Amino acid sequence: MTLKVYLSGEIHTDWREEIRAGAEGLDVAFWGPVTDHDASDDCGVRILGEEPSKYWHDHKGAMVNALRTRKGIQDADIVVVRFGDKYKQWNAAFDAGYAAALGKSLIILHPPEHQHALKEVDAAALAVAEEPRQVVEILRYVLDGTLPG
Amino acid sequence: MTLKVYLSGEIHTDWREEIRAGAEGLDVAFWGPVTDHDASDDCGVRILGEEPSKYWHDHKGAMVNALRTRKGIQDADIVVVRFGDKYKQWNAAFDAGYAAALGKSLIILHPPEHQHALKEVDAAALAVAEEPRQVVEILRYVLDGTLPG
Amino acid sequence: MTLKVYLSGEIHTDWREEIRAGAEGLDVAFWGPVTDHDASDDCGVRILGEEPSKYWHDHKGAMVNALRTRKGIQDADIVVVRFGDKYKQWNAAFDAGYAAALGKSLIILHPPEHQHALKEVDAAALAVAEEPRQVVEILRYVLDGTLPG
Amino acid sequence: MTLKVYLSGEIHTDWREEIRAGAEGLDVAFWGPVTDHDASDDCGVRILGEEPSKYWHDHKGAMVNALRTRKGIQDADIVVVRFGDKYKQWNAAFDAGYAAALGKSLIILHPPEHQHALKEVDAAALAVAEEPRQVVEILRYVLDGTLPG
Amino acid sequence: MTLKVYLSGEIHTDWREEIRAGAEGLDVAFWGPVTDHDASDDCGVRILGEEPSKYWHDHKGAMVNALRTRKGIQDADIVVVRFGDKYKQWNAAFDAGYAAALGKSLIILHPPEHQHALKEVDAAALAVAEEPRQVVEILRYVLDGTLPG
Amino acid sequence: MTLKVYLSGEIHTDWREEIRAGAEGLDVAFWGPVTDHDASDDCGVRILGEEPSKYWHDHKGAMVNALRTRKGIQDADIVVVRFGDKYKQWNAAFDAGYAAALGKSLIILHPPEHQHALKEVDAAALAVAEEPRQVVEILRYVLDGTLPG
Amino acid sequence: MTLKVYLSGEIHTDWREEIRAGAEGLDVAFWGPVTDHDASDDCGVRILGEEPSKYWHDHKGAMVNALRTRKGIQDADIVVVRFGDKYKQWNAAFDAGYAAALGKSLIILHPPEHQHALKEVDAAALAVAEEPRQVVEILRYVLDGTLPG
Amino acid sequence: MTLKVYLSGEIHTDWREEIRAGAEGLDVAFWGPVTDHDASDDCGVRILGEEPSKYWHDHKGAMVNALRTRKGIQDADIVVVRFGDKYKQWNAAFDAGYAAALGKSLIILHPPEHQHALKEVDAAALAVAEEPRQVVEILRYVLDGTLPG
Repeated sequence: MTLKVYLSGEIHTDWREEIRAGAEGLDVAFWGPVTDHDASDDCGVRILGEEPSKYWHDHKGAMVNALRTRKGIQDADIVVVRFGDKYKQWNAAFDAGYAAALGKSLIILHPPEHQHALKEVDAAALAVAEEPRQVVEILRYVLDGTLPG
Repeated sequence: MTLKVYLSGEIHTDWREEIRAGAEGLDVAFWGPVTDHDASDDCGVRILGEEPSKYWHDHKGAMVNALRTRKGIQDADIVVVRFGDKYKQWNAAFDAGYAAALGKSLIILHPPEHQHALKEVDAAALAVAEEPRQVVEILRYVLDGTLPG
Repeated sequence: MTLKVYLSGEIHTDWREEIRAGAEGLDVAFWGPVTDHDASDDCGVRILGEEPSKYWHDHKGAMVNALRTRKGIQDADIVVVRFGDKYKQWNAAFDAGYAAALGKSLIILHPPEHQHALKEVDAAALAVAEEPRQVVEILRYVLDGTLPG
Repeated sequence: MTLKVYLSGEIHTDWREEIRAGAEGLDVAFWGPVTDHDASDDCGVRILGEEPSKYWHDHKGAMVNALRTRKGIQDADIVVVRFGDKYKQWNAAFDAGYAAALGKSLIILHPPEHQHALKEVDAAALAVAEEPRQVVEILRYVLDGTLPG
Repeated sequence: MTLKVYLSGEIHTDWREEIRAGAEGLDVAFWGPVTDHDASDDCGVRILGEEPSKYWHDHKGAMVNALRTRKGIQDADIVVVRFGDKYKQWNAAFDAGYAAALGKSLIILHPPEHQHALKEVDAAALAVAEEPRQVVEILRYVLDGTLPG
Repeated sequence: MTLKVYLSGEIHTDWREEIRAGAEGLDVAFWGPVTDHDASDDCGVRILGEEPSKYWHDHKGAMVNALRTRKGIQDADIVVVRFGDKYKQWNAAFDAGYAAALGKSLIILHPPEHQHALKEVDAAALAVAEEPRQVVEILRYVLDGTLPG
Repeated sequence: MTLKVYLSGEIHTDWREEIRAGAEGLDVAFWGPVTDHDASDDCGVRILGEEPSKYWHDHKGAMVNALRTRKGIQDADIVVVRFGDKYKQWNAAFDAGYAAALGKSLIILHPPEHQHALKEVDAAALAVAEEPRQVVEILRYVLDGTLPG
Repeated sequence: MTLKVYLSGEIHTDWREEIRAGAEGLDVAFWGPVTDHDASDDCGVRILGEEPSKYWHDHKGAMVNALRTRKGIQDADIVVVRFGDKYKQWNAAFDAGYAAALGKSLIILHPPEHQHALKEVDAAALAVAEEPRQVVEILRYVLDGTLPG
C-alpha cells in the first residue's frame, strides 16, 4: 500500500524536505505544488504570452498551476496543508476545502497561534499537528502501526 | 427556475442585506452561515457542554456550524464568497475550495487590493466582483437576461 | 430551507417523540425506521411468505426494512443515531457508517458510558450529544441561529 | 486480477493470520487496521499531544486510525468484517455500513449466535460465513473458480 | 415522504393497474414505460422517419423509449420489475441491472417457475414477490409500518 | 412527472418558440441560454468592468453565461441541441458533450446536410431530428405515450 | 493502454476462447464469470453450508458469484455481452444494464434472430456484432487503428 | 507522477507528433483518436457490416470510435483539444465539453482568429495556447517546475 501524500501550502520554509527526509524508507509517494515563487507567479505569461494587466497575469499563472495542483490533490490519499507565519495563504485554505469536498483525508499543520482562525479548517481534518515531525510519525503509524519510542 | 445562492464569508458588514435587497423580486433563495459572531463561536459548548480547552471549545463550535454550512453549500447552485478587509478569513477560502470541488458555480467578491493573494481562488470562479451590486446584476442577468441600463 | 432529519437507532424509549415535540415550529421533516419491534422482525415473512429457517426469516425482514431505511438515509440532510442501554445495536452503528460514507452530517446521541466503545463512530460525527434536548437545540441553531437561553 | 481485501473488525484472535495463510499463493492483497490494541488507543495523544480528557484522548486516536481504515476500505474490492465474542464492536458495524454505502462487496464473518442481532448487517453482504476457512474458499473460488474438494 | 416507484417489465397483463388500485391512498407516485405495444415499437419511425431496415426501425424506437425509461428509473426510489410468462423479456432484466447499478431499491415480481433462471436478478433485489398484492403490502409497510391483517 | 428540457444551440431562428408553442399543455419546463446576442456577448464587461482586450472581454462574458447554462444543463432531464446553418456553433457541440458526460438524454436537431460533420454528436444522442415539430412529438410521446395521428 | 475487457453471458460455447485466441498479441486483459456451470450453481452451498430450499441454494450461489462479476464489470473498460441460442439468459441482460448504468462501453454479441427481442439492450451498446471475430477486430482497431484487410 | 494526456481534435496536421517529440524525456503518456481519416470513417461498416444509408454508415463508425475516445478521455489527467483551420470540428468541441463535465483539466489549442467563436470552450480551459510548443512547455512546467529559458 503506497500512500500518496500531497503537501500543500506554505512554500517559504523547508517543511516539505523535513517530511520527505523523515519518511525515508516508508512506502510514501509525495507530491506538491511548484515551490519556486517566481516561476509559480509567472508561469502563465512566460508560456502563454504577456498580459498588460496584473490581474490577468496572475490569473493565467494560477490556471497553469491548477493543472498540477488539481491532479496532485485528486490522486492523493492524504493531503497535508501547512499554514505558516506569513502571507494570506488563502490558496492553502482553498486546497483544504477542495480536498475535504473530495473526501480526502486531511492533516493540517500550523503553529498554535492560528488555532482560532483555522478552527473551521481544523474541524475538517483527521489530524492537526504543529511540527513536520508529527506528520512523519503519523505516516509511519498509518503504514506500520509503530509509534514514536 | 429558482436560483439557490449561498452567501459565504465576511460577517462584519451588511453585504448580505445589500444583495438580498437588490435582488428583491427575483426568483432567488438565499442562504448563508449564522452571522452572529458570538453565537457562532460558542454554539458548540452552549449546546453540548463546556470545554476547558480553547481548542476544543472552538472545535465543537466549528462542527456544529458545519451542519449548517455544508447543507447550504451542497444545496446551492451558486456560492458567493466575500473577502473583507479584516481577519484571516481562512474559512471563506475553505468554503470556496469546498464549493469548487463540488462543481458549484463560484462568484468571488473582494476589494481590488486582494487580487494577488486571491489569484488561486479567483481562478476557480465564474465571476470576480468588487461590489455587492454587481452580484445582484449577475443574478438578474442569469435569471432574466437583462443587463444594467 | 427544510431540514430533512433521519432518526436512526434505539427503538425502546421515546427519544424520537421528545425530539419531534421539541422541534415543533421548526422547518424540519423527520423520518425514521418502523419502530414496532414485532412488525419490524416479521415484515418479511408476513408479506413474502414463511421461512422455516430463523436466518432467512430475519433476512427477509431486514431486506424489506432496508427499502425504508435506505431511502430515509439517502434523502436526509442530517442523520441522528441514538445508542441506548440495551442490545447489540449493530444496525445503529451500520446506519452511522452508511450515512458517513454518503457524506451525510451525523449527530450521535448516547450516554457517557459508551464513549470509549463508540469512539470511531463519534469521530465521524459533527456533534455528539447525550440528551434529545441537545439535538433539538442543534436543529434550532442550524435553522435560526438562536442558542438556548 | 489482484483482489484487494480489507479485513475489518475483531482484533483479539488470529483470524486474519488464518485467512492470510490459507490464501497463500492466491493473487490477493490484504489490508486491515492496526491490531495492536494499545497503539490503536493511544496513537492520537502519543503523536499529537496529551489530552486531559479521556473523550478527546479517544477522539484523537480514532481520527488518526481513520487515516488508515478509510484508505483501506476505499481501495478494497472486498471488505470482510469479523464480529467476535467480546466487546461492543460498533466500529466493525460502522465499517460494514461505510463499505456498503461505497458499493464494496461485503463478507460478514460471525458465530451463529449473533445472527439475529446482525441481521441488518448480514442483509447487506454477499456472503455470511462462520469460519475464516470459508473466506479463503470464497477468495479461491472468486479468483480460480475452484471449490473445496 | 412520497415514494417514487417505477414499474418495469411485462406489458401484457394488468399488474400495474392492480398495484395502482391497491396502493390508492398511499403517498406513492408511480411511473413506468409506455405500455401500448405498437406505439412502443413504432415511435421511432413514426416521429423521426421511416427506416427500410427492421434493425434500425427497432433501434430508433428503443432510443426514443429510453428517453422515458431512463428518467423514470433515475428518478425512482424503488424499481419494481415484473417478469411474466411470455417473451424473452431481456429489457426487463436490463432495467433491473441498470437500476441495481444506480443503487435503486429493487423489488422483483415473477412466478415461482422462473426462480432458477432469475437467481442473479433476484440476488440484487431487496424483495422477491409473486403477486402484485405483495408489492402493495410492501409499499404500505414501507410508508406506514402496517402489515396485512 | 415534469420533464425538464434545456434548449441549447442556435439563437438566430425561432425554433425555441416553435417548440414551446407546440408543447403547450404538456408538463414540460423549458430552459435555455440568454438568446439576446449582444447581451450575451457583453454581459461580462457590462457588469464586471471593461476590458481593453477582446479576448478577456469575451472570456468574462462566457463565464457569466456559464452561470446560467451550467445550472440549466445540470438540472435538465433532456437536453436538445440545435445546429443551424450559420456560424461555427462550437458552443452547441460543447454543450452536447457536457450534457452527454453528465448522463443527460440528448436530442440533436439539425438539417440533413450536417449529418457527416455531426456524426460523433449524433452518436451520443437518443434522437436526431430535423424539425422542431419532431421534438414536440417526442416530448408528447415521452409524457403521454401518444403518437402523431 | 491496456484495455480491460469483461466477457459476460453465454457459457456453453467457446466464444471466449475464440476471442482470447484472436486477440493474442494485443494489449488486452480479459476477465469473465466462472464458466463451470455446476460450480457456478453450487458455490454458495458448497462453501457456506447446505440449504434445504432450492431458492436459497440458488441465492447463496448467485451472491458468491456476484463477488466476481461485480468486480469484473466495475474494473472493465469494455463489457462484451453474448446472447446464445438457449436458456433465458436474464443474467446476461442484467449485466448489460448494470454495465450501461456504470457508463461502461458495451459490445453486444448475438445471432440476428434475437434483434427484435434485444433492441433495448442493443440500443445501449456502442457495437452490435454477430461473430466473436468481429469483437476481435474491434479490439484491434481500438488499440491499433488497423482494420481487417 | 505519470501525466496522462489525451490529444483530441484536428487530424490533418502533425501537431500530435510535434508535442510528442517536444515532450520526449518527460513522464507523460499520450493517447488520442485514430488519426487515419478513412479508417475512422469506415471502421463501423468494415467490421460490423455494410449499411446502404450514409447516415447509419457514419453512425456505426462514430460508435466504434467512441470505444477508443471515451476510454482515452476518461483515463486522462489532461485533455488537449486542437482546433485547426478546416472543417466543422464539432467532434473536437464535443470532446472538450465531455472532458469538462468529467472534471478533466483542459488545454485548448487554436489559432487566434478562432477566439470569439471558441470563447465558451476557452472559458472551460485552464490554458489556451496557439502553438504545440506551448503545450510542451506547460507539460514540462507541470512536471518539473521549469520554465522556457
